Amino acid sequence: MSSPLFGTICLVGIGLINSSIARAARLHGLAARIVTLDASEQACETALRLGIVDAAGSDPAALLAEADLIMVGTPVGAMAAVGQAIGPHLKAGAIVSDVGSVKMAVVRDLLPHLPDTVHFVPGHPIAGTEHSGPEAGFAELFQGRWCILTPLPGTDPGAIDKVTQLWTAMGSMIEIMEPLHHDKVLAITSHLPHLIAYTIVGTASDLEGDMQQEVIKFSASGFRDFTRIAASDPIMWRDIFLNNKEAVLEIIQRFTEDLTALQRAIRWGEAETLETHFRETRAIRRAIIDAKQA
Amino acid sequence: MSSPLFGTICLVGIGLINSSIARAARLHGLAARIVTLDASEQACETALRLGIVDAAGSDPAALLAEADLIMVGTPVGAMAAVGQAIGPHLKAGAIVSDVGSVKMAVVRDLLPHLPDTVHFVPGHPIAGTEHSGPEAGFAELFQGRWCILTPLPGTDPGAIDKVTQLWTAMGSMIEIMEPLHHDKVLAITSHLPHLIAYTIVGTASDLEGDMQQEVIKFSASGFRDFTRIAASDPIMWRDIFLNNKEAVLEIIQRFTEDLTALQRAIRWGEAETLETHFRETRAIRRAIIDAKQA
Repeated sequence: MSSPLFGTICLVGIGLINSSIARAARLHGLAARIVTLDASEQACETALRLGIVDAAGSDPAALLAEADLIMVGTPVGAMAAVGQAIGPHLKAGAIVSDVGSVKMAVVRDLLPHLPDTVHFVPGHPIAGTEHSGPEAGFAELFQGRWCILTPLPGTDPGAIDKVTQLWTAMGSMIEIMEPLHHDKVLAITSHLPHLIAYTIVGTASDLEGDMQQEVIKFSASGFRDFTRIAASDPIMWRDIFLNNKEAVLEIIQRFTEDLTALQRAIRWGEAETLETHFRETRAIRRAIIDAKQA
Repeated sequence: MSSPLFGTICLVGIGLINSSIARAARLHGLAARIVTLDASEQACETALRLGIVDAAGSDPAALLAEADLIMVGTPVGAMAAVGQAIGPHLKAGAIVSDVGSVKMAVVRDLLPHLPDTVHFVPGHPIAGTEHSGPEAGFAELFQGRWCILTPLPGTDPGAIDKVTQLWTAMGSMIEIMEPLHHDKVLAITSHLPHLIAYTIVGTASDLEGDMQQEVIKFSASGFRDFTRIAASDPIMWRDIFLNNKEAVLEIIQRFTEDLTALQRAIRWGEAETLETHFRETRAIRRAIIDAKQA
């Protein structure tokens, strides 16, 4: 039998993504030992009760001493604090990676706290659900999904390769990107859609009481799909918007211009403008189906 | 064996909704005979090939002579033309209903062409998929979904009751509403979500070539859910926006104000504003799940 890819994996923060990594890594035998470092006593207890980790707690020294791979899965706003907490306890030669939805801010906030003796390979699995916490995870979450890695120039190719092997073994395809480019792509594919969903659900929440009950009752006509997206973790999303400000503001601006153009077409009864627009958007749907990401 | 609810049902336009009615009505034995009146030769051929109707064609006189229930399932922009075409051929005592997504415009455009000898019960099943055409229908589409009826004051209660029985037998729950109120509720639950989805997918379509490929590749992070909604029938949606102009423009205005407020919070780094907003929107999701409409 071949030895596992990693001796010990330490998952920092045991939410939806890291608890799915725990399950997938165990299922595919990718680590001899899986531990989690989480400030929440309740999250640690849950992870132990679910049997997805071998040890759990809030003491970095104890949990990081043997860790060969450290996967940071906290909201991106906590990266500086995480760096300060884990930096002094990292084993020489260890690989530090993460699953944060923005990458520039992670490089900015986490990297300065890491010793020169460790390798840093930031990452972002393009997978998730609207549910949060260690109980929401499942081993198949990454199957057929992309994982974007954003290593800085000069990163040890061996470290990138080991992180690649981990994600590939869990079913993902790997894409290498620059952090800034990642943040621009995700601003449109993920951050704007979530902001729009949060906005429209908020608009509905502000309606008069009677109307709000009817919105819930008749939500199957389109609205409910937005409520699913807008049920995602509030802290995680607060941090994403605050840490990808420029790219998000730029794409909101484009979106608002486009919405205003359609609004104007509705006001002036421009049937052809509307029809042409609604036809063109079908092509992207077909492309997504063809790319097997539907 | 009891006799079916209707002798002959004539489905005017055989798209997703009417072809689902054909299947459900047949499955539950709700009509002795089901026919379709559709200007498209291809749609008629498909419906006959699928075996979901007993007769199909474009001659109103022949197809309406025996019809006890006429269900209009064309885009709402075609209602006046449909009224002109069917009006002179309707049997005395027949019930005319429809499945249009706006109701004021249907009353405005269809009713004037109907003789006094028929009953008019406008309706709108809150069900659908992003697919179009007679092949996209299925008998279970209305199961557990609401159907809104918007009869005008003075409508024969017996006619309302028969339409209610039809929808109930196909698995729906019935809600009676005034047409204007329907259009306001649907503007928020359906029309705005679709417009937003069409907008964001359009914004992505306008990106530079390379970026567009990446948007497709990494669409699983939120964007793809919008592309599904934005793949709906372009003619149908063009007509909805043009025929529910006031309610849609009013709700776009509210939405834009709310988006601008969140945009401002992102720009100024107002963490608490964002978090509070993102927390509140979870309540509506829970209410929809509780209402079994998720």
